[in-house]
Amino acid sequence: YPKKSAIVHHSIFGKRGMTLEQEINESNAYYLAHDIAVIHKKPTPIQLVKVDYPKRSAAVIREAYFRKPSTTDYNGIYHGYYLDFDAKETNNKLSFPLKNFHEHQIKHLRACIKQSGVCFAFVKFSKLDRLFLLPATKLFFYWDQQLQGGRKSIPLKNIEQDSYEINYGFNPTIPYLDAVDKMINDFGV
Amino acid sequence: YPKKSAIVHHSIFGKRGMTLEQEINESNAYYLAHDIAVIHKKPTPIQLVKVDYPKRSAAVIREAYFRKPSTTDYNGIYHGYYLDFDAKETNNKLSFPLKNFHEHQIKHLRACIKQSGVCFAFVKFSKLDRLFLLPATKLFFYWDQQLQGGRKSIPLKNIEQDSYEINYGFNPTIPYLDAVDKMINDFGV
Ligand SMILES: [Mg+2]
Ligand SMILES: [Mg+2]
Repeated sequence: YPKKSAIVHHSIFGKRGMTLEQEINESNAYYLAHDIAVIHKKPTPIQLVKVDYPKRSAAVIREAYFRKPSTTDYNGIYHGYYLDFDAKETNNKLSFPLKNFHEHQIKHLRACIKQSGVCFAFVKFSKLDRLFLLPATKLFFYWDQQLQGGRKSIPLKNIEQDSYEINYGFNPTIPYLDAVDKMINDFGV
Repeated sequence: YPKKSAIVHHSIFGKRGMTLEQEINESNAYYLAHDIAVIHKKPTPIQLVKVDYPKRSAAVIREAYFRKPSTTDYNGIYHGYYLDFDAKETNNKLSFPLKNFHEHQIKHLRACIKQSGVCFAFVKFSKLDRLFLLPATKLFFYWDQQLQGGRKSIPLKNIEQDSYEINYGFNPTIPYLDAVDKMINDFGV
């Protein structure tokens, strides 16, 4: 939903002040410009109620509501692979709350996995400046455990084991396709 | 953009009164429900200007504008393949006007082809009740020819040669993945 514009200043930890979403979008723009991958964020779906069509100028939306997306936020293609993912941040320092994910996103990721997609989630510990690429199948494990009365969050130490950590770079900001390569290699998608 | 709701009545030609977009969405819902493919229409991007956040109720968009999409309308995954396409209709009977396509869509399709995506356009002659799946590489041929002073439309007889014609069905309305199978077989993506 609408994001406040962020103050961008460089640091050895990347660009502090950018949201994770902005970092991903910037990285995708780099990958696109260099013919490496075509990954886009999907627009937020809107329920239109009232639209004015003034003469000789652009249509103006006068009443509309945000709708719940039925998919993840990002998808696209990289070297023949279909990629599908969402991006989540937490201020926690010890574990990642599963309430950041929604049932419809998990369902969508499961459907994409069945079609042999490369599916994952970005999981960022903002206060620690640590970013992880968590394969969807690992996410499902913790999600399903929670539904069976298990923990409502994934401990950082488990994320360290189950994910690919991404170190911030300059071009792209998040060189996440390196982690995707490793994931494809490990999982044999 | 906002579409009038259509009156749906079945006929041997499919469901007259539905827009091509509605037919595709319905087919995608069928494919999704049957674990055959995960293809979604992307929401229209909106430029938000004014959003009200009333207490105890949902955010209301009070001023916003439609933005030009930077990609095609549809993408997703089918049996490991990344699919990317747009859908266009004409009332013409003899040729399909290239002005239905936009430079940014062609550019996006070219980028996806470079990544080995399965890319195409649906081209419908509404008055003739004929629907074709035109591979993107064929579309590029006519597009480039036009830029070099060639025809501003693709003659129906060329579309008949270069495309896969889709016959309307019941479940799904447009069994277009059959045509995608043929295309993958012919082009060896
Ligand atoms: Mg999100
Ligand atoms: Mg369109």
